[in-house]
Amino acid sequence: MLFPLFAIGEKMKGYMIFTGTELLLGKTLNTNSQFLTSIFAEIGIDLHKIVTVGDNAKRIIEVLNEVPSDVDVVFLNGGLGPTEDDLTKEALLEFLNLDAVYHQPTLDKILKRVGKKGLSGDLKVAEIPEGSIAFYNDAGVAPGSVVAKNGKHYFLTPGPPEELSSLMKNKIVPYLKENMIGTEKIYSRTLKFAGIGESKAEEKIRDLIKASNPSVAPTIKEGEIHFRVTAKGEDCKKLEVMVDEVSDKIIERLEDYYFGVDDESLESLVAEKLVRKGLKIAIAESCTGGLLSNTFTNIPGSSEFFDRAYITYSNMAKIEELNVNKSTLEQYGAVSENTAIEMAEGVFAKTNVDLAISITGIAGPSGGTIDKPVGLVYIAFKYNKQISVVTRIFSGNRLEIKNKVVKFILFEILRKLKED
Amino acid sequence: MLFPLFAIGEKMKGYMIFTGTELLLGKTLNTNSQFLTSIFAEIGIDLHKIVTVGDNAKRIIEVLNEVPSDVDVVFLNGGLGPTEDDLTKEALLEFLNLDAVYHQPTLDKILKRVGKKGLSGDLKVAEIPEGSIAFYNDAGVAPGSVVAKNGKHYFLTPGPPEELSSLMKNKIVPYLKENMIGTEKIYSRTLKFAGIGESKAEEKIRDLIKASNPSVAPTIKEGEIHFRVTAKGEDCKKLEVMVDEVSDKIIERLEDYYFGVDDESLESLVAEKLVRKGLKIAIAESCTGGLLSNTFTNIPGSSEFFDRAYITYSNMAKIEELNVNKSTLEQYGAVSENTAIEMAEGVFAKTNVDLAISITGIAGPSGGTIDKPVGLVYIAFKYNKQISVVTRIFSGNRLEIKNKVVKFILFEILRKLKED
Repeated sequence: MLFPLFAIGEKMKGYMIFTGTELLLGKTLNTNSQFLTSIFAEIGIDLHKIVTVGDNAKRIIEVLNEVPSDVDVVFLNGGLGPTEDDLTKEALLEFLNLDAVYHQPTLDKILKRVGKKGLSGDLKVAEIPEGSIAFYNDAGVAPGSVVAKNGKHYFLTPGPPEELSSLMKNKIVPYLKENMIGTEKIYSRTLKFAGIGESKAEEKIRDLIKASNPSVAPTIKEGEIHFRVTAKGEDCKKLEVMVDEVSDKIIERLEDYYFGVDDESLESLVAEKLVRKGLKIAIAESCTGGLLSNTFTNIPGSSEFFDRAYITYSNMAKIEELNVNKSTLEQYGAVSENTAIEMAEGVFAKTNVDLAISITGIAGPSGGTIDKPVGLVYIAFKYNKQISVVTRIFSGNRLEIKNKVVKFILFEILRKLKED
Repeated sequence: MLFPLFAIGEKMKGYMIFTGTELLLGKTLNTNSQFLTSIFAEIGIDLHKIVTVGDNAKRIIEVLNEVPSDVDVVFLNGGLGPTEDDLTKEALLEFLNLDAVYHQPTLDKILKRVGKKGLSGDLKVAEIPEGSIAFYNDAGVAPGSVVAKNGKHYFLTPGPPEELSSLMKNKIVPYLKENMIGTEKIYSRTLKFAGIGESKAEEKIRDLIKASNPSVAPTIKEGEIHFRVTAKGEDCKKLEVMVDEVSDKIIERLEDYYFGVDDESLESLVAEKLVRKGLKIAIAESCTGGLLSNTFTNIPGSSEFFDRAYITYSNMAKIEELNVNKSTLEQYGAVSENTAIEMAEGVFAKTNVDLAISITGIAGPSGGTIDKPVGLVYIAFKYNKQISVVTRIFSGNRLEIKNKVVKFILFEILRKLKED
């Protein structure tokens, strides 16, 4: 029998158990941990502890025994597959003294897929603890499930990240939110910014970060800063208004650096804008060496707006492909405003695009001088027949500098396209 | 007082504790966990459990109390910084009932850096438990340390991954190996393969994987498979011979797919070979969209061998930049052997390089047909005035396909350069 997860005003307490010998041997990076903990944080479950153990039923039971009495939700991840090493469910059944029953939709799926003979091992995947609620796995086979006993809810979830992700987003998070009914609801939104440092951004909204409802939590992601605004209460409409109000304040104070919300990425927003406006782009990359092109072409359907790029690493390539003047390279150097301009003009002249971009700089670790240090980058844009150049010094190692340059350019394009 | 870590024939038992509220909130991906567990696996420490708790001294002490009595080594990671949230060392001191003493080299470093006034907070970073051995932190400030009590060795290690990595490789792993004296020594080597699937590779060396000394442990890394060969015993020379013998067997059975050992990466090996032979390359990328160029230019000094690349995404770009015939595109399509050949010939004709490579294919998710499915890729090489084409179908999503194509090409280049 399941019971309501928590009463209003109380904070639900959580405990996470990851099972998998591969995690103890360093064979696999545990990305599920960050994924699940960030969901807990968003939903407002106060996580007590994370424990990782091997595929060993005795050890798993040992951990289940250690869970403190005031914990409400125990999340187990991994070990639901068909092999002998998959023992998480078996351990939970033994610990709770429960039997297993078949989850019919999963059983049907397995039987349909493989026929009926000789797969007793596989069939155990369709088992769930008696009295539990099952979550059908659209992305794989092993279902998720939740069973309530000893005043706690025990969740079993599959290990493969894509299965876990699908199950959490489509089934378990809605279930958790639903079952907080009569209690708190949660509404949250992530605001994304670029072109500004973490501490500078936080300084401007310190009062909002210190407030508790809505709460504002920063996360950093290579060249971007995200603020997650979360409101808690009983009335969904009210929560949305609360999040709207704080979001507006944040965006107002950091207006110059704001680019999107939630699942929006810088590159997807740029791509969307280019497609909507029917614009084509071409690029000349030197120090970023193909990273900007690669970022664009990671987007499905990028052929709609991405025409071509020249990765002109050598001086000869700059001269031959982009008609950069030899005298410009000699007089100002390959890393200079003049070279950047001539590269962009070269791309624009050779192609039939609306926006031409060029990048030249010093990604390091060597090649820097006092006048032109590692991280110095010139970026030229030719758009609406106008040329503009931006000069910036980026910090970090070679790969970090390349990444920051690309984020910066994406943000600049977005700004340019907004102005129209 | 420190004591020998274990007696011969016994296996050391380990326990890992990660501290950091950011890990419980999903703000940070815990990469230290995989890094440390893989080291434990290599050294031969049998890891009992991994526990992650917040920056909370009471909780950390609670976990220290839960460590089973048969554990020999307790590794604590994180929480050694100067802020109020950094409480790991304080918790361990309280738990072990030890005082803190200054680690003089670290204290000198801090004082030298910031002068003497008003940094009482910072100075706590230089503290270590009394009676411990300190490991000076070359990559940061907070030193690592180990102290022995209650029959266990407690290690404190810094949280920032680059500091942890440097400290483990240069100080703590050598210390651990050294202190197994009178007991087992360990020798290990990682062999790297590409161009073959995991199960097919494992099948060919199943007998060696089943053996225990040397042990052979597989790990998978996007498009590559690695086998770590580890021997244990008393005589270092003998261990090396044991690892040599098994390594030779593995390489012999998987000869066609072998490319390097330990820290060697596919791209660094290719780069090294190209530089040594004084060869220059140029590339025409269509479906990989700049990923191959970006992979090469991530290598410091790549300008020595990387001349330029054309990211010819549109048909027009293929015609204009590479002189691909319009009729070829019409008759065979952009994704065809003929187009790949003309692209490579075009690059070769326009540049002065020794090796020209072209790639055209369907990265998906759309664009596939029955005749030309998603994942179909044609790759042409023009080298030594000879043209060759390879056709392959790669599986996975858009990004996985791009990645696999690039690994495949790097491996092919390596093969070609070996033949000379």
